[in-house]
Amino acid sequence: MMERKTSLLDEIQYPEDLKKCSVSQLTQVCEELRQFIIDALSENPGHLGASLGTVELTVALHYVLNTPNDRIVWDVGHQAYGHKILTGRKKLFYTNRKLNGISGFPNPLENEHDHFIAGHASNSISAALGMDMAAAFKKEKRVVVAVIGDGAMTGGLAFEGLNNASVYPNNLLIILNDNQYAIDKNIGGVSRYLSKISTSKHYNALRWQLYLLLKKLGLMNDARKNKILRFSNSIKGLLSHQRNFFEGMDIRYFGPVDGHNVNNLVRVLRTLKDMKGPKILHVCTTKGKGFPAAEKDATKYHAPGRFNKQTGECKTSDKIENQPLRFQDIFGYTLIELAEKNNKIVAITPAMPTGCGLTEMSYRFPDRVFDVGIAEGHAVTFSAGLAKEGMIPYCNIYSSFAQRAYDNIIHDVAILKLPVVLCLDRAGLVGEDGSTHQGAFDLAFLRCIPNLTIASPLDEHEFRNMMYTAQLLGDRPFIIRYPRGKGYLTDWKNKMEEIQPGKGRCLIEGDKLAVLSIGPIGLTAKKVVEELNAEGYSIALYDFRFVKPIDQELIHEIGSGFKKVITLENNVIKGGFGSAVMEALSENNYRTEVIRKGLPDRFIPHGTVEEQHQLCALDEENIRLAIISHYHQN
Amino acid sequence: MMERKTSLLDEIQYPEDLKKCSVSQLTQVCEELRQFIIDALSENPGHLGASLGTVELTVALHYVLNTPNDRIVWDVGHQAYGHKILTGRKKLFYTNRKLNGISGFPNPLENEHDHFIAGHASNSISAALGMDMAAAFKKEKRVVVAVIGDGAMTGGLAFEGLNNASVYPNNLLIILNDNQYAIDKNIGGVSRYLSKISTSKHYNALRWQLYLLLKKLGLMNDARKNKILRFSNSIKGLLSHQRNFFEGMDIRYFGPVDGHNVNNLVRVLRTLKDMKGPKILHVCTTKGKGFPAAEKDATKYHAPGRFNKQTGECKTSDKIENQPLRFQDIFGYTLIELAEKNNKIVAITPAMPTGCGLTEMSYRFPDRVFDVGIAEGHAVTFSAGLAKEGMIPYCNIYSSFAQRAYDNIIHDVAILKLPVVLCLDRAGLVGEDGSTHQGAFDLAFLRCIPNLTIASPLDEHEFRNMMYTAQLLGDRPFIIRYPRGKGYLTDWKNKMEEIQPGKGRCLIEGDKLAVLSIGPIGLTAKKVVEELNAEGYSIALYDFRFVKPIDQELIHEIGSGFKKVITLENNVIKGGFGSAVMEALSENNYRTEVIRKGLPDRFIPHGTVEEQHQLCALDEENIRLAIISHYHQN
Repeated sequence: MMERKTSLLDEIQYPEDLKKCSVSQLTQVCEELRQFIIDALSENPGHLGASLGTVELTVALHYVLNTPNDRIVWDVGHQAYGHKILTGRKKLFYTNRKLNGISGFPNPLENEHDHFIAGHASNSISAALGMDMAAAFKKEKRVVVAVIGDGAMTGGLAFEGLNNASVYPNNLLIILNDNQYAIDKNIGGVSRYLSKISTSKHYNALRWQLYLLLKKLGLMNDARKNKILRFSNSIKGLLSHQRNFFEGMDIRYFGPVDGHNVNNLVRVLRTLKDMKGPKILHVCTTKGKGFPAAEKDATKYHAPGRFNKQTGECKTSDKIENQPLRFQDIFGYTLIELAEKNNKIVAITPAMPTGCGLTEMSYRFPDRVFDVGIAEGHAVTFSAGLAKEGMIPYCNIYSSFAQRAYDNIIHDVAILKLPVVLCLDRAGLVGEDGSTHQGAFDLAFLRCIPNLTIASPLDEHEFRNMMYTAQLLGDRPFIIRYPRGKGYLTDWKNKMEEIQPGKGRCLIEGDKLAVLSIGPIGLTAKKVVEELNAEGYSIALYDFRFVKPIDQELIHEIGSGFKKVITLENNVIKGGFGSAVMEALSENNYRTEVIRKGLPDRFIPHGTVEEQHQLCALDEENIRLAIISHYHQN
Repeated sequence: MMERKTSLLDEIQYPEDLKKCSVSQLTQVCEELRQFIIDALSENPGHLGASLGTVELTVALHYVLNTPNDRIVWDVGHQAYGHKILTGRKKLFYTNRKLNGISGFPNPLENEHDHFIAGHASNSISAALGMDMAAAFKKEKRVVVAVIGDGAMTGGLAFEGLNNASVYPNNLLIILNDNQYAIDKNIGGVSRYLSKISTSKHYNALRWQLYLLLKKLGLMNDARKNKILRFSNSIKGLLSHQRNFFEGMDIRYFGPVDGHNVNNLVRVLRTLKDMKGPKILHVCTTKGKGFPAAEKDATKYHAPGRFNKQTGECKTSDKIENQPLRFQDIFGYTLIELAEKNNKIVAITPAMPTGCGLTEMSYRFPDRVFDVGIAEGHAVTFSAGLAKEGMIPYCNIYSSFAQRAYDNIIHDVAILKLPVVLCLDRAGLVGEDGSTHQGAFDLAFLRCIPNLTIASPLDEHEFRNMMYTAQLLGDRPFIIRYPRGKGYLTDWKNKMEEIQPGKGRCLIEGDKLAVLSIGPIGLTAKKVVEELNAEGYSIALYDFRFVKPIDQELIHEIGSGFKKVITLENNVIKGGFGSAVMEALSENNYRTEVIRKGLPDRFIPHGTVEEQHQLCALDEENIRLAIISHYHQN
């Protein structure tokens, strides 16, 4: 912000340039790096808060270590913008998260300084442990570091990694970046345990401030006075300890240290890097550090979109009248409506209350919304327990994160046929988050599981009808997958109606060719088919609504009426909706030719959702061409 | 064993009968219950060790609690035989794990005293937490207990549950059944941490014995003297603590208590059951308690098959000459062979070193076999880290447990195309373990993931060739799925040869109908087709070997040569191999009719593998009938 004589960052392209600075210059480097990130993200949206919090840690790591020979495994790439900028990508940073630009997450396929993939949380300790032990096997000398946030620490995988880091001979350095946030405020016993560790050494000075802080964060309130008492006792208890849980596991524990004092971080890292055996450095940081607006509201500035880099004011276009709401908002509002009438309904989210639209419900029904932290497996099994006892849990998980709850869906929900309503947000192509976050597989991996009902709505009205139907039935697992982002209707608030499970519908009648769709891609098809039929084509359009059970009546109608059909889905075609149609036609002895259109058998990179649809030939123009071409081949 | 005046167990069918006993009679009940289990399992194989260890705990729980109103959630049903016997199933116990008999695991569909499903480890805390909180919502008064072994505690899901049990208002009682074993000896920092908690209170008396024990268990050795020193320090450190990790999380911790003192357990449970808030009772038990042979070798007597109930001698038929080995043995021997020549090869197992055949390799190459505990997600991501740095990890997971590593396979392995060799044992129908353990879904849930090569061998020679090929390539994720149990060849040790990935083969030529198979079910088909062709039929048989990539050349040969094909697989037909064939034929514009035979869209219960194959019409006779019927319809 202020005028600077000479820029140090201008001279830094790679870590070796950074190393030419003196230790005393690093504070300035950090300031410049922070400002660079703020400037860049104010124009080109990305994950602001986490990367501002790790500026000093990033500079210190690259000052002390020698990547790419040394390895840094970032847990969730949100933290790693500074790392990208210091490792040859400063000039490309304006392409962050754009098609053909650099990815928003570390990715070894992009750069040799990125040592592992980091889209889903909690994998760093396990991966880095493997990497460190491989170095020992190959007698290669290097430092391997895992940088994991306290949010990611609530994931079971991190715990499994930690549990094993203590068993086998390794020299792993785990840096716990403790900012008390995942995307929303961090949740759970571990979080509390960490804050106790952090503060015990300064008990006398900090007790009162900490109490106020925890109260502000909602970890304490007047209704939980017992906890407050226990909290005090616990602090006292910890004061008499020399060791903690990590050390009980034979992982040496160091810290907590101030994560914004770069000189001290350099000193500490120099001491730790060559120390034998596994060790944890506990670093306390502030999410959004150095940008007042982001420090004040870490959830809002996790990924704020474009913003004014002076004031922090967000440049979103939320206020435009008559814009459709996002599907996540429809989910949130509708669930409140349903919950008002059905007191069995509760909501569960693994660390995404804002992203999935549950914030308002958590004010309206604070006792009926559970943010379980980054713990998708637990989210589903916990929901199963609630359902087993007669509740109707709406468990909302982004499609790609639901991959982490796969066995929980099979073992804990499907076998007992429990009425868990699993709402898969961000299904299909998701845009800028790229390959790790695509909700590409759910129809294929869920369709093979017995006892599931799998639905996907054409639009917001259907979405609400499906949400309504799920609780009305209340007797089976009910899955609803829907896309990221804006819906299509401004009058979204229909009077909800029950839909017969497994019942699809004909949207447009026609004779020569049938288009079969699942989900909102049917709206694109509708537009195209209407236009073509107006030109004299005779194309039918069916919205199946359910991939499982699949509508047998429609299958007979289509099998006997058409020689050729085109299926459309925002899901991989290997094993997806199109395959379900093909299986059903075949099982009923129809020889109808099935042309399957959907996501191809490769990972789709970052870009806008529109660009990604084009890449996969699922945009309006490509759908039109496909229909015309198959119409004439018919 | 000894003569008894009157049997108490004879009078007990339900928990209310147990409650008629005086506390002083409970020791006798336990002895009788233990003997009942030993007698039953000596004839009808099942999980011996774990259930002997929980006899006293089970009796105490049912003496103090009132199921079915109170809820007991057993984590992994191995522990729950005593529970089944005391809850109305004593007379049915001889049907344990048999077709149409009772299940070897608790299952609410079987009995109202079974409150949750319990085939896969680590789910109890999450499920029970949901159940306890549902009771509060519904204002129903009950005690909800989760009984979790220390083995299951290494699973990330348990940790996620624990992390949340401390957040929301609940009265959950978690009983930690600490026997230091999963199926094999338990592994990891948590295990060590628990043993430290257990022993710190008796430090002076126990220090030396514990040191010897840990040394015996392999947790210490001379090469790790530092650890021994640290261990001592840690014990000392713990002595000065009043609180531990669980209490740091605000879960009250009680124990450790002797898990074989039933009277004391009753006393403790009576105190704890109505206590508000979440709490843990740490109970120390001995796996195989009361049966000397099982106490001595807990791994062998985890599920020993039939045995002599006096001596413990196992009545297995391992010694019969010229019997094919089990696939798991072939895996173990072959991996040693490969590892001798390729020093990049390492082996990873999540808590199944014996079951997957790695025991001998762990003697031969102790540094190259990693048992990571019950932690399938970590097993895969850890393997990915090793592979990222140039090692070739053979990660062996039972098919149904691989469901727990689904996201790890996608996110940590497939995106980066890392050369992890994922060996899925127990794929297909698995017999007595029943619905929770069927390896029914892997082809469907893996086939949709880009960058994977998915193979399944016809027999042991092919299996070895696939294992050989995987490390020879070393450039991609390579999945090999193979069944539980015995193979088919006595001369299993072929000279291994490379197989071209994605290349299938024609086993039998024919004109009229083609049978396409994946995996050892092809051997059944081979027998049937040979017999039918000898009778004058003309049936071709193709062994595809790879489900992905699928052999395009064969697809063209088959598509142009046959109007109808039958596909065979030991996997669900929704989205499985047959669908892959159908997709490939369709994509190449062939109109060949595809009849898919495989597992139906429902959970298959326990029974023998043969019975299960019959249930699914995948036995020889049904395959013959299907082929004949479609041959004539052709």
